[in-house]
Amino acid sequence: MSDFPKFVEFREEGPREGFQIEKEIYPLEDRIRLINSLSETGLKTIQVGSFVSPTYVPQMADTGELFKRITKKEGVKYTALWLNEKGYQKALSVPEVDFEPKLLFYASDTFAKQNNNCTAEEMRERQRAWVRLYKENNMVPDSAYVMAAFGCNMEGEITVNRVMEDFRFIRDLSVDEDIPMPNLFIADTMGWGNPESVKRLIGAVRDLAPNARIGMHIHDTRGMGVANVYAALCMGVDLFESSVAGLGGCPFAGHGHGHAAGNVCTEDAVLLCHELGLETGINLEKLIEASRLAEDIIGRNLMGRVMHSGGLDPLRK
Amino acid sequence: MSDFPKFVEFREEGPREGFQIEKEIYPLEDRIRLINSLSETGLKTIQVGSFVSPTYVPQMADTGELFKRITKKEGVKYTALWLNEKGYQKALSVPEVDFEPKLLFYASDTFAKQNNNCTAEEMRERQRAWVRLYKENNMVPDSAYVMAAFGCNMEGEITVNRVMEDFRFIRDLSVDEDIPMPNLFIADTMGWGNPESVKRLIGAVRDLAPNARIGMHIHDTRGMGVANVYAALCMGVDLFESSVAGLGGCPFAGHGHGHAAGNVCTEDAVLLCHELGLETGINLEKLIEASRLAEDIIGRNLMGRVMHSGGLDPLRK
Repeated sequence: MSDFPKFVEFREEGPREGFQIEKEIYPLEDRIRLINSLSETGLKTIQVGSFVSPTYVPQMADTGELFKRITKKEGVKYTALWLNEKGYQKALSVPEVDFEPKLLFYASDTFAKQNNNCTAEEMRERQRAWVRLYKENNMVPDSAYVMAAFGCNMEGEITVNRVMEDFRFIRDLSVDEDIPMPNLFIADTMGWGNPESVKRLIGAVRDLAPNARIGMHIHDTRGMGVANVYAALCMGVDLFESSVAGLGGCPFAGHGHGHAAGNVCTEDAVLLCHELGLETGINLEKLIEASRLAEDIIGRNLMGRVMHSGGLDPLRK
Repeated sequence: MSDFPKFVEFREEGPREGFQIEKEIYPLEDRIRLINSLSETGLKTIQVGSFVSPTYVPQMADTGELFKRITKKEGVKYTALWLNEKGYQKALSVPEVDFEPKLLFYASDTFAKQNNNCTAEEMRERQRAWVRLYKENNMVPDSAYVMAAFGCNMEGEITVNRVMEDFRFIRDLSVDEDIPMPNLFIADTMGWGNPESVKRLIGAVRDLAPNARIGMHIHDTRGMGVANVYAALCMGVDLFESSVAGLGGCPFAGHGHGHAAGNVCTEDAVLLCHELGLETGINLEKLIEASRLAEDIIGRNLMGRVMHSGGLDPLRK
């Protein structure tokens, strides 16, 4: 499998994804401890929280204070999410935020409606406005995401053609606005992808944009998370968004019975890479410590596997 | 991926694996309900329980009664496990047992010692005795298993060469004893395999025995279960042992913190197959019902993903 990348980058989303979905609002101190623990693992990007409506998402109301109280480690980016201009302005008022402005697209109208109260088409046009807003603040968005890229719990299967419309729009937008847009993210927001559809879509995106770096935002909703990471690795993908301990899940995704899985578990995906001989720059043992801390904080058995079994390297000695 | 099989068979191990590992002894009625529910899913082989020491494994002490009280469905095999002659004799005394005599090999001495109190070498010789014992009862063992085929938590990594010693022994034994031995099982008992090592070992076994049917007994201990099923499917493997809801785990495997994952989850692996367009003969919705019943019985959040999110086909309608 000569297409495997040599080095694989993981961007950690657990602190936002995990605590945003919980009914309980966890103490700031707990989230500080978790982020500080993640800072010691070798992860280079940690999403700390989101600047969203404190009425709808009270769990994230103290994100500004959280940024001020974590111990920032040199070389690590501490990022945040926002969904509208108000949130972005709030983020701008917090000097500790590391900005990674993204453009967001929906391959599903229903999901766009649910998350942003607009059609997918309107969301595209809004991204044009976002580019200009970022530019006014001397920022260049360098990543574009297409969400629900394999399917949507409300709309069903999403075709490759439908997703590629968005990626072509992104290519045209980057030309129109003269921004390079080096990173294209395929987001399987509701866990519809399988290893073969992942390979097909990556192939299509690479055909369209051979020089772009492709990233995958993978959810493990239906148990195919790690298999989909493997499929993406086979296609040479070297950039993943994931959650320590498998924290998280989308509160708007219409899941059924019980607690559905969220993002693919960071340490499980990192172990896969290490077992395949691929470097990640991550100390798996420290990452397992962080995931066990997350479990202690959340107070129930979390979804990760390696956090419960331990890694393999200590058993090889 | 033209090597994918068209039809994939799953053999269900949850009723044994799941209830054997729990500290609590669950009521017979609960296990009867679960097995009856599994009988309606299209699964053709269900391992009901084990005939082992009631002193060491009191959870399985009533396996004989369990066999008598389940509603056997035509076309479904209801099998059992035993580890020594005493257990086998007990199984013989229960006419409801469907016999699938197996030969068991260990690629790890330490694990052989722990499970069977002998070396791996002694275990091999014992299998010769088992062939003869089965023959005396007019049975022909048609499956041979090599356990800890990728690694052992006590011994570390296990090489392909080491595993192939066992498979060569099995080939020679089948010649010596004039038994065809059509099914060769690779068992990743402690979750050491990864998709590439799975492919390599399957390739080596197929080189040795091109006409054998290769089966995989996969554990999800470190989150690579479904990815390993995918890798095996890519190599044309069409036979898997798995556990509904991800029930189970090996109580002797030396796991660390918390509740480690057991066998790969049946319904998650079945969903993978269906998404790849491969038939299984299994009604996924009914299997999800059975896995939710298992969760209700066990009384805590179980490891499966699809049981919590629901399948994809109902969302396509």
